[in-house]
Amino acid sequence: MTADNAASYGFFDDENREYVVTEPRTPYPWINYLGSENFFSLISNTAGGYSFYRDAKFRRLTRYRYNNVPMDDGGRYFYIRDGETIWNPGWKPTRTELDDYSCRHGMGYTRVAGAKNGLHCDVLFFVPPGDNVEIQKLTLRNDSQEEKQVQLFSLLEWCLWNAEDDTTNFQRNYSTGEVEVENSTIYHKTEYRERRNHYAFYHCNAELAGFDTSRDSFLGPYNGFDQPEAVTSGKPGNSIAHGWSPIASHAVDITLAPGESRELVFLLGYLEVAEEHKWESPGVINKAPAHELIARYGTVEQADASFAELGTYWENLLGGFQLQSHDPRLDRMVNIWNQYQCMVTFNMSRSASFFEAGIGRGMGFRDSNQDLLGFFHLQPERARERILDIAATQFEDGSVYHQYQPLTKRGNAAIGGNFNDDPLWLICSTTAYLRETGDFSILEQQVPFGNDENNCASMLEHLRRSFDHVTNNLGPHKLPLIGRADWNDCLNLNCFSTDPNESFQTTENKAGAIAESLMIAGAFVLYGTEYTDLCRHLGDDAEADRAGAAVRAMEQAVIEHGWDGEWFLRAYDAAGNKVGSNENEESKIFIESQGFCAMAGIGLEQGLVEKSLDSVQEHLDTPYGIVLNYPAFTRYHLEYGEISTYPPGYKENGGIFCHNNPWVMIGETVLGRGDQAYDYYCKQAPAFQDHVNLRKIEPYAYAQMVAGKEAPLPGEAKNSWLTGTAAWNYHTITEHILGIKPRFEGLLLDPCIPTAWQGYTVQRQFRGKQASIRVHNPDGVSKGVKRITLNGKEVAGQIVDLSACGDSCEIEVWMGGAG
Amino acid sequence: MTADNAASYGFFDDENREYVVTEPRTPYPWINYLGSENFFSLISNTAGGYSFYRDAKFRRLTRYRYNNVPMDDGGRYFYIRDGETIWNPGWKPTRTELDDYSCRHGMGYTRVAGAKNGLHCDVLFFVPPGDNVEIQKLTLRNDSQEEKQVQLFSLLEWCLWNAEDDTTNFQRNYSTGEVEVENSTIYHKTEYRERRNHYAFYHCNAELAGFDTSRDSFLGPYNGFDQPEAVTSGKPGNSIAHGWSPIASHAVDITLAPGESRELVFLLGYLEVAEEHKWESPGVINKAPAHELIARYGTVEQADASFAELGTYWENLLGGFQLQSHDPRLDRMVNIWNQYQCMVTFNMSRSASFFEAGIGRGMGFRDSNQDLLGFFHLQPERARERILDIAATQFEDGSVYHQYQPLTKRGNAAIGGNFNDDPLWLICSTTAYLRETGDFSILEQQVPFGNDENNCASMLEHLRRSFDHVTNNLGPHKLPLIGRADWNDCLNLNCFSTDPNESFQTTENKAGAIAESLMIAGAFVLYGTEYTDLCRHLGDDAEADRAGAAVRAMEQAVIEHGWDGEWFLRAYDAAGNKVGSNENEESKIFIESQGFCAMAGIGLEQGLVEKSLDSVQEHLDTPYGIVLNYPAFTRYHLEYGEISTYPPGYKENGGIFCHNNPWVMIGETVLGRGDQAYDYYCKQAPAFQDHVNLRKIEPYAYAQMVAGKEAPLPGEAKNSWLTGTAAWNYHTITEHILGIKPRFEGLLLDPCIPTAWQGYTVQRQFRGKQASIRVHNPDGVSKGVKRITLNGKEVAGQIVDLSACGDSCEIEVWMGGAG
Repeated sequence: MTADNAASYGFFDDENREYVVTEPRTPYPWINYLGSENFFSLISNTAGGYSFYRDAKFRRLTRYRYNNVPMDDGGRYFYIRDGETIWNPGWKPTRTELDDYSCRHGMGYTRVAGAKNGLHCDVLFFVPPGDNVEIQKLTLRNDSQEEKQVQLFSLLEWCLWNAEDDTTNFQRNYSTGEVEVENSTIYHKTEYRERRNHYAFYHCNAELAGFDTSRDSFLGPYNGFDQPEAVTSGKPGNSIAHGWSPIASHAVDITLAPGESRELVFLLGYLEVAEEHKWESPGVINKAPAHELIARYGTVEQADASFAELGTYWENLLGGFQLQSHDPRLDRMVNIWNQYQCMVTFNMSRSASFFEAGIGRGMGFRDSNQDLLGFFHLQPERARERILDIAATQFEDGSVYHQYQPLTKRGNAAIGGNFNDDPLWLICSTTAYLRETGDFSILEQQVPFGNDENNCASMLEHLRRSFDHVTNNLGPHKLPLIGRADWNDCLNLNCFSTDPNESFQTTENKAGAIAESLMIAGAFVLYGTEYTDLCRHLGDDAEADRAGAAVRAMEQAVIEHGWDGEWFLRAYDAAGNKVGSNENEESKIFIESQGFCAMAGIGLEQGLVEKSLDSVQEHLDTPYGIVLNYPAFTRYHLEYGEISTYPPGYKENGGIFCHNNPWVMIGETVLGRGDQAYDYYCKQAPAFQDHVNLRKIEPYAYAQMVAGKEAPLPGEAKNSWLTGTAAWNYHTITEHILGIKPRFEGLLLDPCIPTAWQGYTVQRQFRGKQASIRVHNPDGVSKGVKRITLNGKEVAGQIVDLSACGDSCEIEVWMGGAG
Repeated sequence: MTADNAASYGFFDDENREYVVTEPRTPYPWINYLGSENFFSLISNTAGGYSFYRDAKFRRLTRYRYNNVPMDDGGRYFYIRDGETIWNPGWKPTRTELDDYSCRHGMGYTRVAGAKNGLHCDVLFFVPPGDNVEIQKLTLRNDSQEEKQVQLFSLLEWCLWNAEDDTTNFQRNYSTGEVEVENSTIYHKTEYRERRNHYAFYHCNAELAGFDTSRDSFLGPYNGFDQPEAVTSGKPGNSIAHGWSPIASHAVDITLAPGESRELVFLLGYLEVAEEHKWESPGVINKAPAHELIARYGTVEQADASFAELGTYWENLLGGFQLQSHDPRLDRMVNIWNQYQCMVTFNMSRSASFFEAGIGRGMGFRDSNQDLLGFFHLQPERARERILDIAATQFEDGSVYHQYQPLTKRGNAAIGGNFNDDPLWLICSTTAYLRETGDFSILEQQVPFGNDENNCASMLEHLRRSFDHVTNNLGPHKLPLIGRADWNDCLNLNCFSTDPNESFQTTENKAGAIAESLMIAGAFVLYGTEYTDLCRHLGDDAEADRAGAAVRAMEQAVIEHGWDGEWFLRAYDAAGNKVGSNENEESKIFIESQGFCAMAGIGLEQGLVEKSLDSVQEHLDTPYGIVLNYPAFTRYHLEYGEISTYPPGYKENGGIFCHNNPWVMIGETVLGRGDQAYDYYCKQAPAFQDHVNLRKIEPYAYAQMVAGKEAPLPGEAKNSWLTGTAAWNYHTITEHILGIKPRFEGLLLDPCIPTAWQGYTVQRQFRGKQASIRVHNPDGVSKGVKRITLNGKEVAGQIVDLSACGDSCEIEVWMGGAG
C-alpha cells in the first residue's frame, strides 16, 4: 500500500493533455475511452477492456468479464517472449515485474509502455475519427547491448456480438463461433452466415510465424491469460476455432540488433457489408471492404498520420473553451478533463464503463438531455441530432420513453415511461442549444411522437407538450405528481414493493395521483421560465403569458406547500405525508429540492433560498461533497422504495451523489456566494483530490457517487465516468462561476467567483467567432460587473452581442461595485 | 494430451455408485449435482461451481463465472498453507501439482481428495435431504514422519442473490454488500435490510485464527484465486465487507502429529426468517434459525450420520429399478447414472448446468413433462405435484405457457406460448403417471388455467383441452399447425427474421395458419391414442370414440400428405412448401417425424415405418448417433429460421441432437428390430463411450448434442446433463428394450432385445410391490414372448397384474416364438 496521495500512482501532463500512470497497480483500473463517433473502446491502464460498435449491448466486438478475478482480466494484450521471460508492456496479464512502466491516457488515445531486460515496448491505442477501427501501433526497441530474438504474441477475445447473449446462452453460442484467416488477418464471422451483415477482423502488418483463433488452443484449457500455453511454449497452434470461444492472436518473430527498433501496426476493424455482397464464394466472406480499411491504416506512416489528425481533431474541439487562471488544477479540469468527460458521457450515456456493463440501459432520456449541457460547445451539430433523436421518443401527451437504444434510436418498451421529470429536460437541453447556437430552425423541425414517423409535430410543439405534461399532472397541493420517480430514480413513492425480484423502477402499485415532487416543481419553475422566455423571444406573447402564469402558480404552490421552515420539502408521499421534513425521523432534508428551488430562485426575496442553502451547508456538507439526504435511512421504508435499500452513506441513501452538487453550487451563485460555490466545486473536481487510495477511481474523472459521512469509508468513490456530474460541473464552472453565459442575444458575462481571485482569461468560441475574454476583479468581489468592453469599446449591460464582430474579438470585464 | 480413452481420466466404481476422476485436468469440467429438493449445488471435479436455493436465477447463493478464464475458476475452495507450499485438495485454483488426487462423484455427493508433501486432505460435499445446507466435511491427515503445522483457509464468494443482476448492475450492487461475523460463522445479509427475508451463512466448527469477508482483502485486488494474499502471506485480514464483493473465508491453524488426523465440518446454509422475526436488534440479523441449523449438522458425528442417511435415501430411490445383465456398462447406466441424471433433469429442467447459466429459462413446459418419463418410478408423489404445477400454466384454449419459474411456479409472460406441440406433452406425462401409479385421483384434481386459482377445471378436462388444441389448430392438409415451433425450437416456420437482435422463438411475423408439423401429427397419433385409451378405461366411450376418430383422421392425413416416398416429411412451411423432402436441396430428411410417426406406428402395415427407419439408417446414422437432419443447411434460410443458423453439424443443424435418438430406438422396437434399437442405444449411452478427449464431457452423463458428421469434429459432445435425452433413454431402455411396461392393469412384459442376449433379471418396484423379473431368451429372438409366470403360475397374455400379490413377487418371462 502506497501513501495516500495521487503522486504515488501518476501525474498530470497538461502540456500533452495526458494523465500519466506510473504504477500499474492502481487502486481500481484507471480507464480511458477511445473513439468518439461509432467505434468505441474502453481501455484500462493495463490495457484491459473491450470494443464495440455504437451499442455496447447489441454490437460488442471483444469479450470482457466484469467483476472478474483477477480484476480487469481481459483486453487487448501483447506478450513478449524473451528467452525464459514472458512479459506484457502493460504489466497485465502476466504481471511480470517491469523495469519501467507507464500508461499515458490522452484525448482519445492511450499509450502503454513497458521495459524489461533491455527491451522497451510502447503500444499506442486509438480510434481514428471517421472509421470503425482501433489502431494499435507497437514499437519494440532493443536498449541492450546484445541482439534480441523475441516472439511477440497479440491477443484479443471475440465477443459473439450480443453481449448479453454472449454471457448467458452457452447451450447455443458454444456452437456458433466461426473465423477465417487470410495471411496476417484474422476474421471473426460468427452468425455472419445468417442475419448479421457485419464482421470484425484483427490484422497485423507483419508476416506471421503463426496464429491462434481457438482460446483453448492458445491458453490451454486450464490456464489463465497470465500463462498462455502458446506463449509459454513459444508455439502458436495455428488453430481454427469452431464454436467454443474464438480469439485472435498473431505470433511474430522479431530480431533486433542493439539499439534497433521495430514498429508494427495492428488493426481491430469492424465492417458492414450489403446483403448482396456478403460472400466472396459460398461460405467465404467478402473481404474487400476489410482490405480497403487495412489499406488506409495498415502502414506505420498511415498510423502516424492518422494519430496526428486525431490530435488536431481534439485541439479543435477543446479550443472551444480554454481558461487561463491562477490555478493549474482548475485549468486542467476546465480545459481538458471535464470537457473530455463530457464527450464520453455524450457518447456513452450510462451504458458502458467499468461500472456499467454495457448491456442494460441504452441512452437515458433524462441523462442524455443533461449530458448535452457540457457538449453544445464541442459539436453543436451532433447535439442537434441528439436532441431530435431524444424528442422522437416523446409521446403525444408529453410523456416520454425513459430510455432508448443507440443502435435503433427507438424507445425501450421494457422500461416505458412515467418518470415525470423527464419531459422538462427536453426544454432544458433545447433552450441551452438555442442559447449556444442561435439556431432557431430546430424549433420548426418535424419530430415524431413515439418514434412513429407518421405522427410528427414541430420541435417547438414538443416543448409545449413537455411543459403541459407537468401542468396536466398536478397533485393535491398543485405540485407536480412524481410518477414512477423524478430525477432520483430511487425515490419510488408509488412503488410499495416487498418482492426482491421486482424492479422499483417499473413496478407501480399505487395510483400515483397523490405523491408530489418538489424537485420537479423547482425544475418546472426553472425550465418553465426558459420556455416562457423562448416564447416571448419568438414573439408568441399569448403562449408566454399562459406559460408564465403556470410558472408563477407553481412558485406559489412551492412557497405555500413546499417549505418546511428551514429548507424545502423533498416530496409528498403516496399517503400525502411530507418527505424530507424536520418532522420525519430519517432523511429530514434532501439536496434535490434545495438545489432546484435555489436555481429557480423560488422565494429568493423572502430569504428562502439563503435559508435553504444554509441548511444544506449545516446538514449535508462534508469534506468530500454534499450528501443527498440526512440522516440516511437505517431501515427499509416501503413507502419510499429503493432509496432506503442502500446501506447508509451509499448511493442515493446518504451518499454524495455528485450529479446534484452543482445544483447547489449554482444556487450559491444565485445568492452571489462565490466562495461557497467554488468551495463545493473544489470538493468534487477530480484534479483537486489527493486521497487517491481512499478515492480509488481515476484522478481525472468525476464519479457518480462518493461514500457519504455515514458510510464506513467516507470519500471512497464509485461509478466513475458515466454521470451527469460531468456536464453539470462543466456547465456550472463555465457559466455560473466563470460566468460566460450564452444567451439568445449573445454572451452574458456574469462571474460569481471567490473573492480572492484577481481575474482570469477565457478563449471562447461562440457561433463561429473566437472571443478572447479577460476578467478583472480589482475589488475582490464575488459577483457584480461594473464595466465591459468589446474590442475596447464599452458595452451597455452585461450581454455582449458578437454578431457584428469579425472572426475574433476581445472582451474585457471589470468586476466590482453593483452588478 | 493423454491418449483418447476414458481410463486416462478415471473409472466407474459401480459398487459405490461413483465415478472416480483420477486426473484433475479433465477435457472439460466434470460435474455433479448436490441436493435433490430445494437446496442445490453444482460441483466440478476440482470443486468449482455454485449453490442456489430452488431458483438458480432469483436465489443464487454463491457466485460463479461462466465461460471463465481460467476455465471453471470459482467454487468452494480450501487452501492449505504448509510451509512455503500452498495447495488445494482439488488441484484448483492454485494448480499446485499434487502427489495424489481423486474426485469421487457419487449419488448426491462429491468427495475431493488430494495429497501433498505428506499431508492428505479429503473433503466430502453433500446436501442432506430435508434441509437447506451444504455440508463440507474436511479431513486432514499427516502421513509424514514429522509434526505438521499448517494453516487452512476456506473460500467462497457470495452472489448477491439475483444472479442476473449480480453480473450486470454494478453501479448498484457494488454498494449493497453486507455481512456479519459471529464467532466462526460468516453471515451474508445483502439486501436483508429491505425486501429479502433470507440470509446465508458459512460456518466452521473450529475456532478461527482469522477470517475474511472482503474479496479485495483476501485476494489482493490484482490477484486471482490462485494467489490469495491472505493465504500467501499467511495473514487473514479479519475484513468486514461493505459493498464491493463479499466473500467468506475462515482461517484455521492446525497442528498434526505424525499419523494424526483432524476432521472439520463446514456448513453453507440458507435460511428464511419471518418478517416479524428478522432482527435480533436494529441492524443485527436474527441468527437463532442459523444456530438451530448448525446445531443439527455442526459436529463430525452429525455430518457422518447425515451422510449415512443420504446413502439410504439413494439406495431406496434407485432400488425402484435394478437390472442384472451380461454387460456391466448397461447395468451401470440403467441402475445408477441414467436414473441419477433423471433426478437431476427433474430438479433442474434446463436451468443450471455448466452450459446453462441458470438465469434464463426456468422450467420448460415441454421439457418438464418429458423429464417425468424417467422420474415416475423414483418419487411418484413429487411427479404428481409437478404435473399439477405444469398443468396450471395451461390456458383455457389448451395452449400453455412455454416456461415457468420454479420459485413462483408461474408462467413466464416474457416468453408466452404458441409452441403447438406443448399441450400434447401433458397427455404424455399424465398417462404415463397413471400407468406407473394407478392413481386416477389426479384426474379429478381441480387445476387452474393460466395460474388463476379462480378459474379451474379437472385435470382430465385439462387433458381434453390439450387434445382439442391440436384438432382446433389444423392447417391446409389437416395436419397440425406448428405455431412458433414444435419440439424443435429452432424450426421457426412462422418467423422470417433478418434482425439479429430478434429472438427466433418469440418473433412471429407470419400469420401461422399454413405451416404444419408432421412431428406434432405423429405425437398426436401417439398421445391422442393414449388419451383415447384413457377415456375408454374410464368408461367414457363417447369421448373415446370422438378422440379415436380424430386420431384416425390424423393418421390418414399423414399417410396422404406426410409421406415423401422413402420417409416422412418434416413439415410444410409458411408458403405450403414441403420441408424434409427429397425435393429439397438441403435437409431432405429429418429425424423427428420419422421417430414420432414410427412410435405411433403410422402406416405400419403399409411398410412406411420400416421404410422410414431404413432411411434414417441410410442417411442420418453415424458412429456417434443419429443426426437431426441431412444434408445440413449451409446457408441461412429465412423461411426456416434458427435451424439454419448453426454451422453444419452442430445443434439442430445436422448435429446429433440426442434427445430424439430414443424415438428412433422405440420405432425400431415397433418393428421388432432389437439389434438395431440396442445399437442406437449403445452409441449414445455414456458408459459405452471410450473417446473421452474427443467427447470432452462427463463419461457418466448424457449430452444434449454431439457434433454430427458434417461438423469439424464429429463426436465432440456439448451441453451435458440437462437434456430430455436422459428421461427418453431411460424410458426406452427400461420399457421398450428391456420391455417392462407399466399399464393401467399391471406390468406389460414385452422385451425387444439383441438376438445375442440370453436373458437378464430386473428388480422393479411397482405400486408398492417388489417384482423380481427374470427374462429368458433361449431361442435368441429379438421380440416375442411365449410364456410368462407369476410366482410360478402361468399368466395369460403379456400383462401381469400384481394387485393380488404380497409385498414381493417373482415373474419369469420366456421369449421366443410368436409374440
